[in-house]
Amino acid sequence: MTEINGIGASNGVQIGKAFVLQNPDLTINDKQVDDPQNEKQRLEDAVERAKHDLERIQQHVETEMGSEHAKIFGAHLLVLQDPELINAVHQKIDKDHVLAEKALNDTANQFISMFESMDNDYMKERAADVRDVSKRVISYLLGEPLVTTSDITDEVILIAHDLLPSDTAQLNRNYVKGIVTDIGGRTSHSAIMSRSMGIPAVVGTSEATQTIEAGMTVIIDGEAGDVIVNPTNEQLEDYEAKRQKEQAEAEQLKQLIGQSSTTEDGHTVELVANIGSTKDLGTVTENDAEGIGLFRTEFLYMNRDSLPTEEEQFDAYKTVLFTMGDKPVVIRTLDIGGDKDLPYLDLPEELNPFLGFRAIRLCLERDDLFRVQLRALLRTSVYGNLKIMFPMVATLEEFRQAKALLEEEKQSLQDEGYEVSNNIEVGIMVEIPSTAALADQFAKEVDFFSIGTNDLIQYTMAADRMNEHVSHLYQPYHPAVLRLIKQVIDASHAEGKWTGMCGEMAGDEVAIPILLGLGLDEFSMSASSLLPARKQLSQLNKQTVTDAATTILNQQTNEAVKDYVTDQFLN
Amino acid sequence: MTEINGIGASNGVQIGKAFVLQNPDLTINDKQVDDPQNEKQRLEDAVERAKHDLERIQQHVETEMGSEHAKIFGAHLLVLQDPELINAVHQKIDKDHVLAEKALNDTANQFISMFESMDNDYMKERAADVRDVSKRVISYLLGEPLVTTSDITDEVILIAHDLLPSDTAQLNRNYVKGIVTDIGGRTSHSAIMSRSMGIPAVVGTSEATQTIEAGMTVIIDGEAGDVIVNPTNEQLEDYEAKRQKEQAEAEQLKQLIGQSSTTEDGHTVELVANIGSTKDLGTVTENDAEGIGLFRTEFLYMNRDSLPTEEEQFDAYKTVLFTMGDKPVVIRTLDIGGDKDLPYLDLPEELNPFLGFRAIRLCLERDDLFRVQLRALLRTSVYGNLKIMFPMVATLEEFRQAKALLEEEKQSLQDEGYEVSNNIEVGIMVEIPSTAALADQFAKEVDFFSIGTNDLIQYTMAADRMNEHVSHLYQPYHPAVLRLIKQVIDASHAEGKWTGMCGEMAGDEVAIPILLGLGLDEFSMSASSLLPARKQLSQLNKQTVTDAATTILNQQTNEAVKDYVTDQFLN
Repeated sequence: MTEINGIGASNGVQIGKAFVLQNPDLTINDKQVDDPQNEKQRLEDAVERAKHDLERIQQHVETEMGSEHAKIFGAHLLVLQDPELINAVHQKIDKDHVLAEKALNDTANQFISMFESMDNDYMKERAADVRDVSKRVISYLLGEPLVTTSDITDEVILIAHDLLPSDTAQLNRNYVKGIVTDIGGRTSHSAIMSRSMGIPAVVGTSEATQTIEAGMTVIIDGEAGDVIVNPTNEQLEDYEAKRQKEQAEAEQLKQLIGQSSTTEDGHTVELVANIGSTKDLGTVTENDAEGIGLFRTEFLYMNRDSLPTEEEQFDAYKTVLFTMGDKPVVIRTLDIGGDKDLPYLDLPEELNPFLGFRAIRLCLERDDLFRVQLRALLRTSVYGNLKIMFPMVATLEEFRQAKALLEEEKQSLQDEGYEVSNNIEVGIMVEIPSTAALADQFAKEVDFFSIGTNDLIQYTMAADRMNEHVSHLYQPYHPAVLRLIKQVIDASHAEGKWTGMCGEMAGDEVAIPILLGLGLDEFSMSASSLLPARKQLSQLNKQTVTDAATTILNQQTNEAVKDYVTDQFLN
Repeated sequence: MTEINGIGASNGVQIGKAFVLQNPDLTINDKQVDDPQNEKQRLEDAVERAKHDLERIQQHVETEMGSEHAKIFGAHLLVLQDPELINAVHQKIDKDHVLAEKALNDTANQFISMFESMDNDYMKERAADVRDVSKRVISYLLGEPLVTTSDITDEVILIAHDLLPSDTAQLNRNYVKGIVTDIGGRTSHSAIMSRSMGIPAVVGTSEATQTIEAGMTVIIDGEAGDVIVNPTNEQLEDYEAKRQKEQAEAEQLKQLIGQSSTTEDGHTVELVANIGSTKDLGTVTENDAEGIGLFRTEFLYMNRDSLPTEEEQFDAYKTVLFTMGDKPVVIRTLDIGGDKDLPYLDLPEELNPFLGFRAIRLCLERDDLFRVQLRALLRTSVYGNLKIMFPMVATLEEFRQAKALLEEEKQSLQDEGYEVSNNIEVGIMVEIPSTAALADQFAKEVDFFSIGTNDLIQYTMAADRMNEHVSHLYQPYHPAVLRLIKQVIDASHAEGKWTGMCGEMAGDEVAIPILLGLGLDEFSMSASSLLPARKQLSQLNKQTVTDAATTILNQQTNEAVKDYVTDQFLN
C-alpha cells in the first residue's frame, strides 16, 4: 500500500484500476537518408493517419460535448492541410536529406517560434495547435502512436502528468471514474473540467505517474485529496462503504426533484443555475433548476476571430429561453476585458486588469458591439421569461446609459416590425463595493440585483483571489462582506425589488444559512449544487437563521463567522 | 502671438524669456583613424571633463536637494571609473581603428543591451546610467557640450522636450520660473517635480520645442495649461495682473501662519502634512503644519541594493521627530509591493499588483525586515510624539499580528536596555473597503484611523486610477465613498478614538466642507495646501456643513455631490 496526497479538486470516492497516460519517447534521429522521395511518402502516410484520428475525435467530441469543444480539432485539421507547412517540410527533406520526422520537427519548431513571438493571443494559440498536431504526426512516423484518453474503453482511474484540453475533450465519463494528475491546482484546467463532469479528482500529487503503474488498484478520495495505491483489504472495504454511502446520498437527493426550495418553516426561495453556454442546459434540467440566475454570454465571443453576429447570438439566447419555458432566465451582457481577452478587439494592455476596462465599461464605450447584443436579447424576449443584467456597474450613470441604449434599440426593433416583450426586467450585478454601499439609490431604478460575490469579495478585500500570495484574504464570511450583502438585500426589499446571488458563495453550505438569514431571494449556483442546497434549505428554519444574522454581522473575523455558523447550523 | 495648449501640471502664472533645452547633434562619424593612441588620449580628456561636470552637479544637488537626489550622480561617476568599460573601448580603438566616440558609442550600446536584457530592475537602471554617461562623454568628444539646466543663471521659462531626473535635480528654482515640455502627463516625472518645487508647469504640449525659440517672451498659465508665445501687450498686462493677484494671495496666506485651524463658529481641526522623506521638512515648517499626518517610509528602501539598516532608519525617524518637537508625527510602516518594487527583495510578478502582495501583507510574511523597522521606530519614540500606522490592513487578524510583533520588539529593546515610550498610539490606514465597513470592530482595538482615499476610492470603485480607460471612475465624491468615510469617523468617535485622512482628497477644496461636515478630526495633505485649507476652514461654519452632510450622503452621483457643494460652499 502506498498513499499519495494531492489537492482535492473534485469530490467523491472511487475505486478502480489505473490507466496511466504516458508520453511516448519521441526522440528523433538526425541521420542522413538516401531517398527523400521515400521520406515524403512516409510523411504523407503519417499525416493521413493523423487526419483520420482527428476526424474521429472531432466527431466523438461533437456528439459528447457539443460543437464548441469540437472546434479545436477543426483547427488542428486545418494545420495538417496547410500547404505552407507541408511544402516547407518537403523542401527540408530535399535539401538536408533528413528523416521526415526530423524535417517536420524542425519546421514545426520554426512555425511555433514565429507564432509565439507575435504579440497576439490568436497567433499564440496557433503555435499550440502546430505543436499538438506535429507531435501527433511524429508519433506515427516513429511508430509510437500516442495513447489518448479516447483509447479508454473500460472503467478506470486515469493517471496523467497533466490533462490537456484535447485530453479532457475526448474523455468518456462512463469509463473514467476518477482522475489523478502530477501537476495543477484547484483552478487548473484539469480541476475545472473534472468538477464540471462530476468526476472525482486529485491534482498536484507531484508523483502519481511515477508511482502508479497501469492495472494497479487505486482508491481516490477527491474531497480529502488522497490517493491510495494497492490498498489493503480493510481500506478497500472502508472506501467501498464510503462510496456506496455517497451514491445512496446522491440517489436520495434525486427525490427532491420537482419539489420547491422551502425551509422547514415554510419560507420559499428560488434555486437557479449559472450557465456558461447552451451545452450546460442538460445538467440544468437534470438537476431541476428553477431557472437560470446567470447566463454568461462570453462563450459566444471566444475562440473565434470576429464578433458574433446578431443572428448567432439570437439563436443561442433563444435556445436557452425555449428550453427553460416560463422559468426565469437572467442573461448577463458581455463581461469581457480584465483577464478575459478577445484578440480581435485589440484591448489595451493593463497593469491591473481586474481594476480596468471591462464589462459595462467597455460596452458603453464600444456601443457598436453592445447594441448588437442588446438587439439579439430584445428579439428573444418573446420566447420566454427574459431578464437582462449589466455587469460591473459602479455608478448610476452607467446603469442609466446602458438602459437608455436598450430603450433605443427596443424602439428601433419595433420600428423595424419586430415584436419585443414589454415585461423584461432589467437589473445589475452588484460586484463593486460602491454599488453595494449605494444600493438604496440604485434600487429606485433597477428591477433587481444579483450579487456577484467572486468579484465583490475580491474588491472589498483588495485581494486578487488568483494570486496565491494573498488568496488567504479572499474571505467570503468576512463580516464586512456580509454587511454589504445585507445592505443590498434590504435596499431591494425597501423598493419592492428582489436580490439574487450568482457567485460561488450562493452554493456554499456555510454561506447558505447566512444568506437565508439575510433575506436573499434567489440562489444561483452550478447545477450540481442545486439538490444539495435544496436539501439543506429544507432542514433550516428561516426564523432561526434570521435571528442569528444579527450575531453574525457583529462578529470580528471571517473565522469567527465560520465557526459560529458551523456550530449552529452544520453537522 | 502664438498660443500652445498642454496639460496643466503645476498651478501659477509666470512671464519670462524662453530658455530652450536642445539636444545637441550627436551624429558619429565612423571613419578610420591612423593614430589609436591619440583617440585614447581624446577619450581620457573627455572622461575627465565629464567627471568634473558630474562632481560639480553632485555637489550642487547635494546642497540644494539633499543627499538622496545626489546619489544618482555618484552612480554615474562609478560608470566613468569602471575599468571594464574603458578597457573595452580601448580594445575597440586598437582593433578597429575608429574614432574614440565611435568606439565608446558601440561599447556603451553593448553594455546597455546586456543590462537591459537582464530580468532585473536594478540592472535596467544601470543601463540608463551607462546611456546618460556615455552621451555626456560623447558630447565632449564631438565638441558639442550638453546644455544642462545647471547652465541657467537668469530668470527664465524653461522649454524642453522632456525633463530627465538629472535635469530636474540640477534645476535652480530661483531662476526657473516656469516649465513647458513637449511630452508627459499630470503624473509624469516633470509634472510631479514641478508641483513639489512650486514651479508653474504645462506638459504634453507636443510642439513647444519646435515653436518656441530662445529669448522669446512666454506666458505660462499652469492651471489652464496655456502657453502664450510672443504675447500682445494686452495679454502681457492681463497676465501680469493675474500673476500679481496670485502673489498677493500667497502673501495673505502667510498671515495665517501661527494661527489655529478653526471654523468661523469655533470648531478646531488638525492640519498636518504628508511627507515622503526628511528633505520635505523644510516646506512643512514653512507652511506651519501642525504635525505630520503621514510619513511614508519607502524612500529609505528605494534606490539602493539592500535593505536599510536599523541605524539608518533610526536616524531618519529621529530627524523627523526632533524637527517636529512635540507635534504629532504619524509614521507609516513600509508600503512596498504593488507598483512599488524593490529589486533586491525579489518580489513575485503579479497580474494585478494593486490587489496583491504589498504593505502589511508583505511585512507580516517577511517579518525579518518588518521587525527591523519596528525596532527603529520604537527606539525613536522617546524623541517626540510618535504614532505608528500600519498600511493596507484588511482584517483584524492582520492588525493583531502586527501589533503583537511590535510588542515583542518593544520587550526585546527594553531587555537590551533601550528606553521606549509607553504612550505610542498605534493605528491603521483605512484604504480597503472591508476595513471601512467593519470600522466599529476595528475601533475597539486601534488607537486611530487614517483614511487613505487614493486607494480606498480605487478599490471601492474597482477602478485603477492610473488607467486612462477607467480613470473617470476615480470619483472622490461618489456617495458610496463618502458613506464609507462617515462610517469610519463615526466608529472612531463611538470608541473615543480619532480619524484623520491622508489621501489627496484631504486637501481638496470641494472635499473639505464635506469632510468637516462628516466630523473628520485631522486633515493631512501636501504642505503647499495647508495654508489655503486653513483659510477655507476659517470661512466655513461647522454647524452648516454638518447639516449639509445628510443631504450630501443621499445624493445619487459624484457629479450631484460636486454640484451641490460647489453651489453651497464654494465661490
